[in-house]
Amino acid sequence: MTSTAQSSAAKFCLNLADIRQAAERIRPHVLMTPAVDAWHLHQELGCRLSLKCENLQYGFAFKARGACNAVFSLSDDDATKGVVTHSSGNHAAALARAAVLRGIKAHIVMPHNSARVKLEAVRNLGVEPILCEPDSASREATASAVQQQTGATMIHPFNDARVIAGQGTAALEILRQVPDVDTIIVPVGGGGLLAGTLMTIKSIRPDVRVFAAEPAWADDAFRSLKAGSIQPALRTDTIADGLRTPLGTLTFPIIQHFVDDVLCADEATIIRATALLAQRCRMVAEPSGAVPLSAILQHGHLFLGSKTVALISGGNLDDLRLLD
Amino acid sequence: MTSTAQSSAAKFCLNLADIRQAAERIRPHVLMTPAVDAWHLHQELGCRLSLKCENLQYGFAFKARGACNAVFSLSDDDATKGVVTHSSGNHAAALARAAVLRGIKAHIVMPHNSARVKLEAVRNLGVEPILCEPDSASREATASAVQQQTGATMIHPFNDARVIAGQGTAALEILRQVPDVDTIIVPVGGGGLLAGTLMTIKSIRPDVRVFAAEPAWADDAFRSLKAGSIQPALRTDTIADGLRTPLGTLTFPIIQHFVDDVLCADEATIIRATALLAQRCRMVAEPSGAVPLSAILQHGHLFLGSKTVALISGGNLDDLRLLD
Repeated sequence: MTSTAQSSAAKFCLNLADIRQAAERIRPHVLMTPAVDAWHLHQELGCRLSLKCENLQYGFAFKARGACNAVFSLSDDDATKGVVTHSSGNHAAALARAAVLRGIKAHIVMPHNSARVKLEAVRNLGVEPILCEPDSASREATASAVQQQTGATMIHPFNDARVIAGQGTAALEILRQVPDVDTIIVPVGGGGLLAGTLMTIKSIRPDVRVFAAEPAWADDAFRSLKAGSIQPALRTDTIADGLRTPLGTLTFPIIQHFVDDVLCADEATIIRATALLAQRCRMVAEPSGAVPLSAILQHGHLFLGSKTVALISGGNLDDLRLLD
Repeated sequence: MTSTAQSSAAKFCLNLADIRQAAERIRPHVLMTPAVDAWHLHQELGCRLSLKCENLQYGFAFKARGACNAVFSLSDDDATKGVVTHSSGNHAAALARAAVLRGIKAHIVMPHNSARVKLEAVRNLGVEPILCEPDSASREATASAVQQQTGATMIHPFNDARVIAGQGTAALEILRQVPDVDTIIVPVGGGGLLAGTLMTIKSIRPDVRVFAAEPAWADDAFRSLKAGSIQPALRTDTIADGLRTPLGTLTFPIIQHFVDDVLCADEATIIRATALLAQRCRMVAEPSGAVPLSAILQHGHLFLGSKTVALISGGNLDDLRLLD
């Protein structure tokens, strides 16, 4: 118990041991995605950048990690009643896949305006999404009704300790793959990935800076940190559709305690970063996955001379014209 | 000397030891590219496919390997006189880069109709390409004239033992990254990558099948094997611009002796495979790099139930609309 995170762990919903257990539990069900040297951007950015490619993960998103950890944590009794969630996209398909792997039923509530590719990903797993309105209240009410009817276990997309622990496993891999990393930047929506990453990194390598990146049009995490309490999203139209949700009660305390800063990126830069990842790094990412690179482009002085890993969170892109 | 390749090595211009030395020599100058699980294609192809991502290599092509091995093999005396080559593209930039790394002069002869992105890659390294007509005779005559004027060492894009040894290092990595591989498929143009891969694989793991993939519109390797002698290219208009060249006198004997088969792919399938790599594998490849997947799509019965690695040779794509 020498490090900051370990000694404060009692305050939070999970600790490093939970993340290490999650890594063991999900190993058969997720890919160890590569950390790719983004050598073509080094000169422009003034830093050595690697990309942790969760866009190559099963389901093309890191969400496979949290969903598998949650589903494979269930007792056999609970598992037989199935799982339920609401999600704008990647968690939806990830939970459906984890349920299929365990052979149990998944009830997936999705906003009707979810990206087409994300709706299809769920259908391709043999699960028909239950459509709702594109706001938190409708999502939660619909999922809650399904839960009461079926007795299924709610696996929230981010406000769930099992999910956060699963998302934190990507950071364990980063430390092995890029041992000289000094800075990590991950996107923040509900904060599951960010909270898991913070718990891993600040427990093992508290000297490594961890930045969150979010769209300026969905800057609720930025405002929440300033205000000292969870702030709602003010608009839900950023192209980074995976990052439109506000923080959760379990993720906020971890983020508030450990994050080095939240860096915002505007829409034009998010679109440019999505194209840059394809053109200069040969990587297809969805706009949400390009938000960390967008934040580096807009806050370059923070990264000069650093060895940075940007986590590319997903690759579910509706429109490949964005790459041009 | 138990394996087939090792016991026949005397007939050929290189052996496994040359490739192992090349791997040591170039280690500081090339990336160990990831082998990525193409999980989204497993069901459609009926095989477990991994992609060896040389599209993520420095210069976005495997050519960095051979060029670095050749340039860093030169004596100091030879090095001071510089290097010269002719190439339709990726070898050009790779040799320019290797020369810059060693601090020597590079003379790069390129057909005037080379892909724009490949001409720019050379210019971005501070080297102005010497333009020639888009046929082998003009390329060789122009390079030869430069060589006589400058005393530079010719580093042929494929018909050079040092280059072949460098290209063979990717296969060493494949064996470490995918130990249960039973089939490897690589594109064939002049045959440097194919000959290097064959020498590595048939020396260490002669049980692993090695297929070559080439465009039906540039099927000179296929015809050369049938005829028992090097056949010329009959047309030079395949979209897979890296594979338009005929085999060389050093690469042909190795290929003739060891290759399991040459599989041809038509233009429509090459275009489809380029799009599939982006859409299903989140990987930007140039058409030449997508030719192995094209060949798997067209000769699927050969791959059923296999654990196959397709080498994605490059990612220098002029027109991202090909991904749609």
